[in-house]
Amino acid sequence: MYGAGDVRVEEVPDPTIVEPTDAVVRVVRACVCGSDLHPYRSMPAGRGRPMGHEMIGVVDAVGGDVTTVAPGDFVIAPFTYSDNTCTFCREGVHTSCKHGGYYGSNGVGGAQAEAMRIPQADGTLVKAGIALEDADDALLASLLTLSDVYLTGYHAAHMGRVRPGQIVTVVGDGAVGLSAVLAAHELGAERIILMGRHLARTDLGREFGATDVVAERGDEGVARVMDLTDGEGAHVVLEAVGHMPAYEQSYRVVRPGGVISRVGVPQYEEAPVGFPSLFGQNVTLTGGVAPVRAYLDDAVGRVLSGAINPGRVFDRTVTLDDVAEGYRLMDSREALKVMVKP
Amino acid sequence: MYGAGDVRVEEVPDPTIVEPTDAVVRVVRACVCGSDLHPYRSMPAGRGRPMGHEMIGVVDAVGGDVTTVAPGDFVIAPFTYSDNTCTFCREGVHTSCKHGGYYGSNGVGGAQAEAMRIPQADGTLVKAGIALEDADDALLASLLTLSDVYLTGYHAAHMGRVRPGQIVTVVGDGAVGLSAVLAAHELGAERIILMGRHLARTDLGREFGATDVVAERGDEGVARVMDLTDGEGAHVVLEAVGHMPAYEQSYRVVRPGGVISRVGVPQYEEAPVGFPSLFGQNVTLTGGVAPVRAYLDDAVGRVLSGAINPGRVFDRTVTLDDVAEGYRLMDSREALKVMVKP
Repeated sequence: MYGAGDVRVEEVPDPTIVEPTDAVVRVVRACVCGSDLHPYRSMPAGRGRPMGHEMIGVVDAVGGDVTTVAPGDFVIAPFTYSDNTCTFCREGVHTSCKHGGYYGSNGVGGAQAEAMRIPQADGTLVKAGIALEDADDALLASLLTLSDVYLTGYHAAHMGRVRPGQIVTVVGDGAVGLSAVLAAHELGAERIILMGRHLARTDLGREFGATDVVAERGDEGVARVMDLTDGEGAHVVLEAVGHMPAYEQSYRVVRPGGVISRVGVPQYEEAPVGFPSLFGQNVTLTGGVAPVRAYLDDAVGRVLSGAINPGRVFDRTVTLDDVAEGYRLMDSREALKVMVKP
Repeated sequence: MYGAGDVRVEEVPDPTIVEPTDAVVRVVRACVCGSDLHPYRSMPAGRGRPMGHEMIGVVDAVGGDVTTVAPGDFVIAPFTYSDNTCTFCREGVHTSCKHGGYYGSNGVGGAQAEAMRIPQADGTLVKAGIALEDADDALLASLLTLSDVYLTGYHAAHMGRVRPGQIVTVVGDGAVGLSAVLAAHELGAERIILMGRHLARTDLGREFGATDVVAERGDEGVARVMDLTDGEGAHVVLEAVGHMPAYEQSYRVVRPGGVISRVGVPQYEEAPVGFPSLFGQNVTLTGGVAPVRAYLDDAVGRVLSGAINPGRVFDRTVTLDDVAEGYRLMDSREALKVMVKP
């Protein structure tokens, strides 16, 4: 990406092993993330940067120190790399790994590509648990969501400590919001109120477990949620947007002692947290960049068993040559989530 | 209080039973709260308002619906009243009780008085578990802290989910901060770093369980805490001040995936919560107005058994006639916590 709206497909040298802890992985499926739309809308023109951070693929080569994966393995790559051994990884915060990082910077490429170098391969890559040739398109789609989108939704529900019997409100009907609905359902939420206004999306949300849909926003949206909850509000609000109106919506529909769990990357730095908004009612604010690696091992099993089908969020597929069209489709909301097939 | 610095002692009619759920309690001990200093410093001059919300006393009369306490009972009154039966009370958030409220407003008096009307007496008052005549001054002091200050510190540690083995940083060496140290120690924190610069106070903090004291503030204070934690930061930060520099200190010393638990009443509404401060490192922000009623039954036992002596935070006692001097002593930091003896 060279600036807002300026997505180009370029020939670059094939990635190679640089560190003995690296692997090179041939990309089988990648995709466009809602967070990719932020630079797509506002990045200043300048030097290009590699894009994409969600990927499943087949290991092509490994460095001399890599022991847990080997060439030919079909793997899932979380959207950040991490050693899985440092203090913070052991505490489940792989996105803060002392030796980890994000793709697309510091000499590490992006996932919207034919191949990628994965640093810290032992700590990062997780075997898909099935041979590539045995996986159909639906399964590939669901495995791909474990790289980011589904497990980001799961992170919201996990950090929000969603428990059986609770009322959960999900703010946002994008692919992460719908994933959060599915995760809240998995964790036993009794009632899941999805705030969103795109019928095709909220319909999928209902299939994922939403019991109510609120299309209204602002004061009306708050009033609707309060009506649905006997004026008490939701135990947990999962915020999957990242803009200030979604944050405000969240603290206005959460109940006293409740939790707001954010996974939409905040497009603001300052926000209300004082007596009227959070403190006076003991509302907890949690969430952050999802350490999907922490949840991956368990989630692979749930996908392979068919317990969950999070890959249903993909509604379009483009080739790598057409990736610019994939951005356009998501930006215009014509597509919910676009898969990229090299 | 009639305005900043304007504390007067006045004769008013004795409180009486108004609702059948009321009790009237004769005050045995009350005190001045750190939060009382906010109006003491900044309240506009105008109509007077009754002050004080921390109290132990003896029941003098009860309304017709009151069944759990009777005249003559020695009781502890939490700093808010609550029915202990509504949805939010059952969820442990008594400070958001649907039929509850704060003292000193809506026709309910304050605790810096000879007697008080306590609404929702069944839900609010807790028997002290000992006869008044059997309690010495030290025990009275500790029981009084269960009305607010100790259990507010405890709330910070509880909401911060302090666990054995953790590193906890406490910001603030006031009576609530020291109470938070004691509570973190009770909950098994391995290391407790107390940020404060008043030697008499931090010495008591060490007796309460602080393993390290950091007198520096700002950048230097942050650097000292990071040094003490191998550059990793604290698992939990208990913020017992309420001003913005304390909040900033908190997010700068908390580790990735850690928790900031606030009980200092925020003197700000907006604060940094975006990617650089909280979101990028999965830092949770929790805490609020302490629902001390939720913790009172357990805490009474720990005080009576001598397991904890939180009453040590009191270092001065004044009579009711001298309550203005009590405010002055706390405002000037000559006193840590002032008891009021009617």
